[in-house]
Parts: sequence; C-alpha cells; structure tokens
Amino acid sequence: MSLQGDERIDYLYTDQSMQIIQSPSVFSYSIDAVLLANFARLPKKRGKILDLCTGNGVVPLLMSKYTPVPIKAVEIQARLIDMAKRSVALNKKEGQIELIHDDLKQMPHRFGNDKFDLVTVNPPYFDTPHVNHHNKNEYLTIARHEVMTNLEEVIETSSRLVKSGGKFVMVHRPNRFVDIIYLLRHYKLEPKRIQFVYPKEGKEANILLIEAVRDGKSDVHLLPPFYVFDEAGEYSKAMKAIVY
Amino acid sequence: MSLQGDERIDYLYTDQSMQIIQSPSVFSYSIDAVLLANFARLPKKRGKILDLCTGNGVVPLLMSKYTPVPIKAVEIQARLIDMAKRSVALNKKEGQIELIHDDLKQMPHRFGNDKFDLVTVNPPYFDTPHVNHHNKNEYLTIARHEVMTNLEEVIETSSRLVKSGGKFVMVHRPNRFVDIIYLLRHYKLEPKRIQFVYPKEGKEANILLIEAVRDGKSDVHLLPPFYVFDEAGEYSKAMKAIVY
Repeated sequence: MSLQGDERIDYLYTDQSMQIIQSPSVFSYSIDAVLLANFARLPKKRGKILDLCTGNGVVPLLMSKYTPVPIKAVEIQARLIDMAKRSVALNKKEGQIELIHDDLKQMPHRFGNDKFDLVTVNPPYFDTPHVNHHNKNEYLTIARHEVMTNLEEVIETSSRLVKSGGKFVMVHRPNRFVDIIYLLRHYKLEPKRIQFVYPKEGKEANILLIEAVRDGKSDVHLLPPFYVFDEAGEYSKAMKAIVY
Repeated sequence: MSLQGDERIDYLYTDQSMQIIQSPSVFSYSIDAVLLANFARLPKKRGKILDLCTGNGVVPLLMSKYTPVPIKAVEIQARLIDMAKRSVALNKKEGQIELIHDDLKQMPHRFGNDKFDLVTVNPPYFDTPHVNHHNKNEYLTIARHEVMTNLEEVIETSSRLVKSGGKFVMVHRPNRFVDIIYLLRHYKLEPKRIQFVYPKEGKEANILLIEAVRDGKSDVHLLPPFYVFDEAGEYSKAMKAIVY
C-alpha cells in the first residue's frame, strides 16, 4: 500500500483487525467517529447504510466490523476519497464499502428519496462565519468548518435519503444541540435516543450523539452519560469496551 | 395554623428553617420542585419572579430562602392556593410571596408583557389524552396531567411574561425534551442551560432541568449529570448539598 506525504497506517481497533490511513496534515479521525460508529444501531442482515462527510472513511470501516450490509460513503474532498479508497482496499472491504466523491447535496438526485435504512454523519462542527477564523489548512478547514455544507443542509439531505422509519445518526457538539433538535423535527427526523459524552465526571458535555427516526413519534430517551476518561485520567470502562 | 383533612406540616429544609403544609390526597411536593428551585439562578437584589403552576407554593417558598426579591405565584386550584397561603403565613413570607388564584393564561392580561426577570414552572407532565388514564383524584389529575393547561400554553405564556434577556426555568420529563426545545425556540426562549437528572449511575435520565433566555443567542451548555442517589442507595453528595 503506497503512502503519500506524511501519511501513516494506524490500527482502528486494538485487536489490530483493521487498519486505516491517516495524515496529521490532511485528516486523522477523532474519538467522535469512534463514538458515532458505536452509538449507531446497525442493520444486522439486510438494509443499506449511507455515511455522509466520510473523510478518510473511518466510520464505514468501523461499522463494517459489525455489519455485513452494503455501506455507501460520500466525501467532497478528492484527497480524502483517495485515502479512504486505499484504506478500504487495505482491509479488503471493496465488496462492502463503496466510496463516492461528490457533494452530499447530489445524493438524493443520485439515489432518489427514501432509500437508506441508516444514514450516519460526523459533519463539520463549526459555523465560523469569518474566513480568518478558519483553519489555515484547507483540508482541515473543509472537514471542520461549515464551508462546503452546513447543519441544515446535512439534516435536510439526510431526511430525504432515509426511509420512513429509517434511522439518522449524528455526532456533533452540544452547543449546537438546540439547532440540531429544531432542524431534525422540522425535517421530520424525530429524535429518539440522545447521549451526551463528557470528558470525565464533573465536566460539561463536549460531544453529542443523537439518533432520529424518519416520521417517528415524539418520545426521546436520554441514555446514561458516557465518560471518556475516569478519575485517574485513564480511558473509562465504557470507552475501553469500545476500543479494546 | 389550622390544618384540614389529611394535611400535615413538613420541613422544607433539614435545618428546619421553613415549613410547608402538605396533603397526600391534595398535593405533596416532589424532588422535582426542589431541583427546580436549586437550578434557577435567582436575582440577588432586584428583579421580579413569577412561579406558574405553583401548587402548594413549594417553589416560591424554597426560593425565598435564597433571594429577597418579590415572588408572585399562580395556581388554578382554589384548594391548593388555600394551602399555599397558609404555608406562606406559617413562614412569615407574606411580604415577599404573593399568591394568585387564577389561570396562568390570564397573567399577560394582568401584568402585561415583558415584566419578569425570572419565570419558573413545574408544570403538569402528562399529555394523557384519555380521561380514563387520568388520576382518579381530581386535585392530583390537574396537577399532573395537561387538563387545564399544556406545554405549549405554558411556554407561550411565559415567553410573553418574561423580559427580553430574562430567564425561564422549567422542570419536566426527558421524554418531552424534543417538544420542549422546539417550542422554546419557537416562542423566542432560547435554551441556555440543560441538566439531566438521573436516579443513579447507569440509569436513563428521568428529570430534565432547563433554563432559557428570552431573545438569547443559540449557545447551550449541558451541565454535568445530576445523580439523586449514589451506588449505596443513599442521597448523592450533590443531592445532600441541596436538602441539608
């Protein structure tokens, strides 16, 4: 497997069953992607999954360990799609994971409405309006800031793509929580499961996991809080259960 | 102080500084009221507070220990207003707490818009549509079910009563969370602080505390989870800090 520039190969799970190509200057996945893949309830036998804003393909790769159903994954940056394709090949997942280099807005035209059982997304978090607040690195800017898409577009597009009764699962920052809830309901994606992730006990939440069901009824469950680190600064038991 | 029927006098704080008249067949306050009063950030010197759905006056009484500002409190049930008035007298708080026997919908007509620095409410939780699901006891039915008012009316009315920049604080059930967020934003009460209360570690949240600011900007903080009981089944440290 050929690597470009500062790319390296990391293990996705500590059992070393899967690998991924990363680059500090282009894209490296964060804990958010790991939590998203773990939070999503995956179709076990049948169904179709779509991952938006897939970056280097980390979320489809993580999910592919736990479900055999086909996963399509979309990314707007050519450089990242190239990394993702090589990672998919590295793990021999070409039969399951299809990578699409395109704008997520095009997906309803490409696939039609009501096509997926599960849509997952780890979108850009920051709505930074001023260009000088953007990251100097263009790859990272597009991955982290709402430059090429924004929250409403992600939710509106996902609402069209997911089947009635199908699931939409997103990871985001808690400070956008009200926007997220408001937009989800507006686009008929009814929030059903919410989990706040806290760096450790006593701190404010810094990651939000949310599952919504297309055309679902109003009835949401607040899952127990998830702590990433314990009091000793080590990964919590819950976190170890995901990565080990 | 004369008591009626099965009424009794309980202490509001374990330092025995305040008392309240309760009745198992008419109204007894729950932990929700205690958490609401503790969660609200009270005006320290100036300002006006309004408590809606006040029941036996538990929330204004609890708040009056920590703020000297005037508190108006509204309740639609005459029997409960009578209990509340006697409790206010018992604690010699007639100079601070004014009880109003009326429908909360009438408050904007009575006071006008934009009048309060803080509006608190522990409303009926259940939207039970069928009469046969209501509590057999009429007092408890009106206190717990959306018979005389409902979530949207509470939020719409509060939005009119609170000043721009003023606070609205509510306790409710997490399963109504999405409705709450959606209605708050719709009525220009922007959620700012949210805390989920869990019976103990590992359980789903069963109480929601939320503070919104009239005409506030979108930026919400998720406070650390609040656990009522510890692993041994005793009140948690955080809970003891409130009641002791």
